[in-house]
Amino acid sequence: MKKNIFYAQSGGVTPVINATAAGLFDAVKKNKDFFGNIFVGKNGIAGALYENLIDLRKEDKHELKKLKSTPGGAFGSCRIKLQDPIKNKKEFQRILEVFKAHNIGYFFYNGGGDSQDTTLKLSQFSKNNGYDLKCIGLPKTIDNDLPVTDNSPGFGSVAKYIAVSTYEASLDVISMANSSTRVFLLEVMGRHAGWLAASAGIIKNNTNQPPHIILLPEVIFNEKKFLKKVNETIKRNGYCVIVASEGIKNSKNQFISASNSKDNFGHAHLGGVAPKLANMIMKHLKQKVHWAVSDYLQRAARHIASKVDVDQAYAIGYEAIKLARKNKNGIMLTIERRMKSKKYSWSVGSTKLENVANKEKILPRSYIGKDGFSITTKCKNYIKDLVMGEDYPKYKNGVPDYAKLKHPLLRKKLKKFNK
Amino acid sequence: MKKNIFYAQSGGVTPVINATAAGLFDAVKKNKDFFGNIFVGKNGIAGALYENLIDLRKEDKHELKKLKSTPGGAFGSCRIKLQDPIKNKKEFQRILEVFKAHNIGYFFYNGGGDSQDTTLKLSQFSKNNGYDLKCIGLPKTIDNDLPVTDNSPGFGSVAKYIAVSTYEASLDVISMANSSTRVFLLEVMGRHAGWLAASAGIIKNNTNQPPHIILLPEVIFNEKKFLKKVNETIKRNGYCVIVASEGIKNSKNQFISASNSKDNFGHAHLGGVAPKLANMIMKHLKQKVHWAVSDYLQRAARHIASKVDVDQAYAIGYEAIKLARKNKNGIMLTIERRMKSKKYSWSVGSTKLENVANKEKILPRSYIGKDGFSITTKCKNYIKDLVMGEDYPKYKNGVPDYAKLKHPLLRKKLKKFNK
Repeated sequence: MKKNIFYAQSGGVTPVINATAAGLFDAVKKNKDFFGNIFVGKNGIAGALYENLIDLRKEDKHELKKLKSTPGGAFGSCRIKLQDPIKNKKEFQRILEVFKAHNIGYFFYNGGGDSQDTTLKLSQFSKNNGYDLKCIGLPKTIDNDLPVTDNSPGFGSVAKYIAVSTYEASLDVISMANSSTRVFLLEVMGRHAGWLAASAGIIKNNTNQPPHIILLPEVIFNEKKFLKKVNETIKRNGYCVIVASEGIKNSKNQFISASNSKDNFGHAHLGGVAPKLANMIMKHLKQKVHWAVSDYLQRAARHIASKVDVDQAYAIGYEAIKLARKNKNGIMLTIERRMKSKKYSWSVGSTKLENVANKEKILPRSYIGKDGFSITTKCKNYIKDLVMGEDYPKYKNGVPDYAKLKHPLLRKKLKKFNK
Repeated sequence: MKKNIFYAQSGGVTPVINATAAGLFDAVKKNKDFFGNIFVGKNGIAGALYENLIDLRKEDKHELKKLKSTPGGAFGSCRIKLQDPIKNKKEFQRILEVFKAHNIGYFFYNGGGDSQDTTLKLSQFSKNNGYDLKCIGLPKTIDNDLPVTDNSPGFGSVAKYIAVSTYEASLDVISMANSSTRVFLLEVMGRHAGWLAASAGIIKNNTNQPPHIILLPEVIFNEKKFLKKVNETIKRNGYCVIVASEGIKNSKNQFISASNSKDNFGHAHLGGVAPKLANMIMKHLKQKVHWAVSDYLQRAARHIASKVDVDQAYAIGYEAIKLARKNKNGIMLTIERRMKSKKYSWSVGSTKLENVANKEKILPRSYIGKDGFSITTKCKNYIKDLVMGEDYPKYKNGVPDYAKLKHPLLRKKLKKFNK
């Protein structure tokens, strides 16, 4: 009897995570002789725990076709940290019970570092409990902080959004600087890794061009040095454009903008660096500052996705099915960089989950400019390759025609799960 | 001898103000028999005051071709309030001296309400001083608050940006709401008129869909009522999406987010409504809030411009030259709405500057929902027509290939102007 597939989305969503789902679903269609049905976890791993399995056969096929160009997590994502099965195996046991009840032999988990750790643990747990489950991690993170893989699907599109937005806002402040606002500041995501803030740097071709200051979490934030740089930039160019990562820290290792709340993985909630920096500039330099916080807008900006990113996200899903058919287990798919006669190309590879779970890849020193406020040519070239090409969604009545799914659930076979 | 043309951009820029310049320049080319050269004010009216006249003949023609798809004010804009010539005629006199020195007979000023007032005053002043100057106002404002004209070029594109961004961010929060953030809040521009915040409402087809709450400056902000609505929405839908205008005020007529600084027109600088509202929700409802402030990103987002808006902005510039050739004076061009068999179409008209100068068109009562947190179908239909169609810029190396102008100045003929 053919085994069924479980697929779920996890962690913060991206403009292209659904493209990975689309790739996976398309590949299953071509391997109907081998695989059974696809059941999708509603709200990530919560779907497995609570037996909320979306029956893809009952979703509107016309809407499913739009998945590749729909942002967000079309099946619901989650921020749930499962209990370590070594300490308390209740949750992992339940997942296997649900999988057994629905004849699931393949687990595809689409997420970042925390999610790869969940996939690894489930892979080990099912093996130790004699349940045949192929566990495959599908990389996804706008932060680009997964190790081994050359880049993570999701990053390229958000990098493109940030580069384009910074370019456009710079043209605005250049227009106004003569008699009005001279400083523009954009806050972008990136908790510990500065890849997203760095991506604004690809629009800069010489030191006088924006962005003049990129604040990376990899570089300790020094208020005095920062204000000096802002002041010098205004004096030299008449205006100053700053892109700040939400995760910048001072020399005491404190986030410049930490709130008191934490998420379920124990990470502090960040946000609000922009107004803090704007106030510093207004107070000490007496300069009016316009500031923007892109927050979810960046993470969901499918309307300006990178073609390379969409293609890679789709390929990750597609190739995962091929590897599952080859009985691969305990791996995460990766993007491998190839340079053919200086032109960027890529292919899909894989690595053991042990190599990626709970590890973060920050900006290497060679990617950060000597002044600590810029990126190097090496970094620029790396990011540029990932933002190439446009892949516009279709529009209806002036706005994108994104997939509208109904999440029809499979009939439950088990009792309710009590945590 | 043919008279030369002076054109300048004024006030906050838009994604399509340069399309108006492109339309004007193209029309002049077709009317070479009648008009002389085009001189563009560097940084708006400051270019006239300080005799900084950009010589369009010396700009790179290849770059000028990109004007129609370039955001920001390509020639520099300004926030300069000229002195009332009745009280002090020094500035207006100087402008006429500069125009006389350069044989300028046509003044085209591309701006909002304040700028139309400047155009009106210059028209009256030149008449009173016996200088033959045709003064024509070209409407431009993302706020859509100019009267008489059915809509203002610039609004449609920013409305599209806000509608698309709200839609995308909503898909993000829907994905995450089960185990993480349940509230998303977007702050948009709009000092006194809520057209931009209202534009997010075009993505909503029933009460359960986002945006659940639109905060308009036309409706007095009531904290208690607001928090009640947020709470109810989360309970009913599991999440809540809010779009707030920067200009919302409480019952004491105070801006919810007023800073102490003012611009040269005496308007208070606004910004920072989002964090204030987010804190309210976190404090009273104990809900985590993700918030974004679009600021300049919305105003410069040419990458997602509305085709209707670009076409209208271009037509305004083009038709202005035709009207100037017909010796029209003291007018502002307008967009006139036509409904042919329920389908939207438009044409360019004009109105006397007296009718528009220093007047603001706010959202009519019939456009605001009874609950004060939504827009009516009438409003939705009006805005929808203006966001239709896409008009993508060309891309180069992953980012838009926007015009790079050099601003070559005409040789000065007069002494330096001392204010």
